[in-house]
Amino acid sequence: MDALEALRTRRSVRQYDTERGVADADLETLVDCARLAASARNAQPWEFVVVRDAATRAELARVATNGSFIADAPACIAVFCRKSDYFLEDGCAATQNLLVAARALGLGSCWVAGHRKPYADTVRKILGAPDDMLLISLVAVGYPLAVPSPVKRPLADVLHWEKF
Amino acid sequence: MDALEALRTRRSVRQYDTERGVADADLETLVDCARLAASARNAQPWEFVVVRDAATRAELARVATNGSFIADAPACIAVFCRKSDYFLEDGCAATQNLLVAARALGLGSCWVAGHRKPYADTVRKILGAPDDMLLISLVAVGYPLAVPSPVKRPLADVLHWEKF
Repeated sequence: MDALEALRTRRSVRQYDTERGVADADLETLVDCARLAASARNAQPWEFVVVRDAATRAELARVATNGSFIADAPACIAVFCRKSDYFLEDGCAATQNLLVAARALGLGSCWVAGHRKPYADTVRKILGAPDDMLLISLVAVGYPLAVPSPVKRPLADVLHWEKF
Repeated sequence: MDALEALRTRRSVRQYDTERGVADADLETLVDCARLAASARNAQPWEFVVVRDAATRAELARVATNGSFIADAPACIAVFCRKSDYFLEDGCAATQNLLVAARALGLGSCWVAGHRKPYADTVRKILGAPDDMLLISLVAVGYPLAVPSPVKRPLADVLHWEKF
């Protein structure tokens, strides 16, 4: 898919085709694009846990507020970062790359917040991540059953030339 | 450009062809892709200021630590967000989209940190942004003179299947 089209047409997808799994090679592609996102001073403080196992996804869905659909998505990718000066910026850049890569592969995805959430430490333990790993996001991934069309602020609203 | 290629080959470019400006239509495309990034609860708390003016860029370059190259880039895009629960996450997602869109158009770009930087408020005033606008990033944009190749952690290093 064309890059500008993928960037412009990514939407948060919460309903997935439960009959259709995501190929491991595609899940690898998503993480590959995420690891190549920008990071401050090239720190790359991120680690990605790809969860296909249904029992683990059900557990994540139960603890993550607003992430109940993780149980039905064929895969969920947890993004963690080591604490560093810009770990949240870096982790969010990686997460956005992951979403755009999913769109490019015809997959739907949805970003569930992780940082500072009360369940962050529980998720870390469920996935066996070390103490120094901070949860940035949980990304549900699967072939979309329905793609929502939320209203977006028009370009003229958000773009200012030279001065605000 | 293919989406996966753009996501994978974006690098931080700090040296620009000073003889070659960026078309306004391309700058609009960058902001258009940025405004369509993911945001928590579709809040879209962002505003983008596109600076072409050389005197303003020189001022930004002087105050922004590690952003001296903003003076030589033909354009700089400042990303601001209104304070909300996930304004930093949202602003970073938009910034990453902007970088990938630049790559897709054959442009180089570099993310200069904004949030919590001592110069954030000064930048806000230079650009005439309201008090409630928080600087997320300054992105220098231009045709690349040199594209660096920093070492990236290999996929096998950062990808964990099922458990960390």
